[in-house]
Amino acid sequence: MRSLPSMLPLIQAPMAGAQGPELAITVCKAGGLGSLPAAMLTPDRLREQIATVRRETDAPLNVNFFCHAEPAPNPEIEARWRDRLARYYVEHGVDASAVTVAPARAPFGEAACAVVEETRPAVVSFHFGLPPAELLSRVKAAGALVLSSATTVAEARWLEENGADAIIAQGREAGGHRGMFLSDDIEAQPGLISLLPQVRDAVRVPVVAAGGLSDGRGIAAAFALGADAVQIGTAYLRTPEATISPMHRAALASARDDATRLTNVFTGRPARGLVNRFVAEVGPMSKGAPHFPLAAGAAAPLRAAAEKRGSGDFSPLWAGEAAALAREEGAEAMTLRLWAEGQGVMARLSERAR
Amino acid sequence: MRSLPSMLPLIQAPMAGAQGPELAITVCKAGGLGSLPAAMLTPDRLREQIATVRRETDAPLNVNFFCHAEPAPNPEIEARWRDRLARYYVEHGVDASAVTVAPARAPFGEAACAVVEETRPAVVSFHFGLPPAELLSRVKAAGALVLSSATTVAEARWLEENGADAIIAQGREAGGHRGMFLSDDIEAQPGLISLLPQVRDAVRVPVVAAGGLSDGRGIAAAFALGADAVQIGTAYLRTPEATISPMHRAALASARDDATRLTNVFTGRPARGLVNRFVAEVGPMSKGAPHFPLAAGAAAPLRAAAEKRGSGDFSPLWAGEAAALAREEGAEAMTLRLWAEGQGVMARLSERAR
Repeated sequence: MRSLPSMLPLIQAPMAGAQGPELAITVCKAGGLGSLPAAMLTPDRLREQIATVRRETDAPLNVNFFCHAEPAPNPEIEARWRDRLARYYVEHGVDASAVTVAPARAPFGEAACAVVEETRPAVVSFHFGLPPAELLSRVKAAGALVLSSATTVAEARWLEENGADAIIAQGREAGGHRGMFLSDDIEAQPGLISLLPQVRDAVRVPVVAAGGLSDGRGIAAAFALGADAVQIGTAYLRTPEATISPMHRAALASARDDATRLTNVFTGRPARGLVNRFVAEVGPMSKGAPHFPLAAGAAAPLRAAAEKRGSGDFSPLWAGEAAALAREEGAEAMTLRLWAEGQGVMARLSERAR
Repeated sequence: MRSLPSMLPLIQAPMAGAQGPELAITVCKAGGLGSLPAAMLTPDRLREQIATVRRETDAPLNVNFFCHAEPAPNPEIEARWRDRLARYYVEHGVDASAVTVAPARAPFGEAACAVVEETRPAVVSFHFGLPPAELLSRVKAAGALVLSSATTVAEARWLEENGADAIIAQGREAGGHRGMFLSDDIEAQPGLISLLPQVRDAVRVPVVAAGGLSDGRGIAAAFALGADAVQIGTAYLRTPEATISPMHRAALASARDDATRLTNVFTGRPARGLVNRFVAEVGPMSKGAPHFPLAAGAAAPLRAAAEKRGSGDFSPLWAGEAAALAREEGAEAMTLRLWAEGQGVMARLSERAR
């Protein structure tokens, strides 16, 4: 059984579109496992970003890829979706005929694999399952510890059988995209407090807890449930190292426990974010959304136009259910505080046990 | 701040229709807080059941009531619902014209309050909010510690402001009926790992963790998150003291983490149970279901007819998301084991914290 190479068993969740090398570098230096999200980068940009990290630290790094099946464009579905959004295009002065479906997120393929072989990151994590066996073997041959997310026990078993070295048990509370790949029923994903111990019992590889953990209490709870490590996302969005918009920052600062929803209107796949106008009026879940990641093309110009006016009404405000427990803080201080808090809660629990 | 009167900070969740005095007695004798669900009992039957408990133990007892608003019957909605179920009535030889909407669950009222004043249980818990202020004062004047369930921080605050002495933070994972009363949007309820610390921060009264806790790991996690006590339901359904059907027992024995859904087809309010034919074909959530608790009348004869044939296809198979972590065991042994396991996990966490 291989365990995480970082000093602390704490992974900064890779968050595509919300961070670059700076966050990863800072977390790595603090002793956590920093992550670089590669899903929205070309291989060249990824190579550059890894080099940027390497100039600052030689600590273990996680590089994250999506491995969804690429959908064939479906002009009929996409035209219907543009019709659904027509009144928003008019409102925002967007030329609907210029809306593109060019995917902004590419699955892990030959070129990305070559970058992994060349840069040899200590950890490679995947979202939406695992890449084809031949590519996965090459990643492992390059020395990477391979992680992937499971939203159910069945997915955890599948990942272990298909070569994952550790499983990220992603609870329903998690912000951003569900890692689900064996089912598309969002009601199948249990909450972390139920999912984690069941995944722990079902597989032999290490299990990383993810979803709804934004302070030391959540971290201690994850270890009580059997986790070998924790993965924290939403809290890191509140660091200056994250590259999110001011609107996203403001939404996180006033987040409530009951204000997130799983929505597919931004990308075509369910992801958790704070409710805004687009989610409320078009979603949260819409059967008409084009397949992932094609829906993103239709939403992008609305987001850009609204943000130009200072509005986050059409922006994906990704957030987990514990966003309100996070605080504005530098990524180094946050990493150290989260870990110290978790240790403190665990130490105090032992008194309770007497 | 008043704390739980029982020896162990562990409440056996009241489960209407699934248990009587025997389970409560056994848990009370083991040191937990045993509960009697009153929602489906007449005041006379409740009085009898409390007397049955009292003959066996004078340990603190919790009596649980529903306090929903009673809906006016709506013949149009009910007729459409019977039409929706017509093919199942035909299949099961049920005379649809004889289907009743007589509510099998009554909200807490004058007569129930008189039973509380007469029998003076140490704890009275409510589901779906709190009863009218005048009744609540009488319950408190009778010496009871008053508990109620919150599914969001907003509900927790409301309960504290309106007189609850302790809040049950009910995570989305919980089996049975959501305690929700400020919203009917089932997507608003966070998972317990996110909800509990946010409720803990929002109120001053003790907080009880509920939902998806079926073994010592969950119990330890709940205390890590800030709980003052835990409430366990689904696990107790697997004791011989529970009064559920053989079909329900069999379904629990093969429960999976991803096999429960929130459904309103049995009663009109969302409740979590294992998917069976009725849930899959008519639900899980249906906009056509009559208001709680009137939907129960339409489903009851189907359940009875199917169970007579040994089928659980139309039975409410209430279960939380951690049903698979429970085991068949006597209620005394289960209470003692759950507590010892929880203590063990907490003690081991302190080693991790060094």
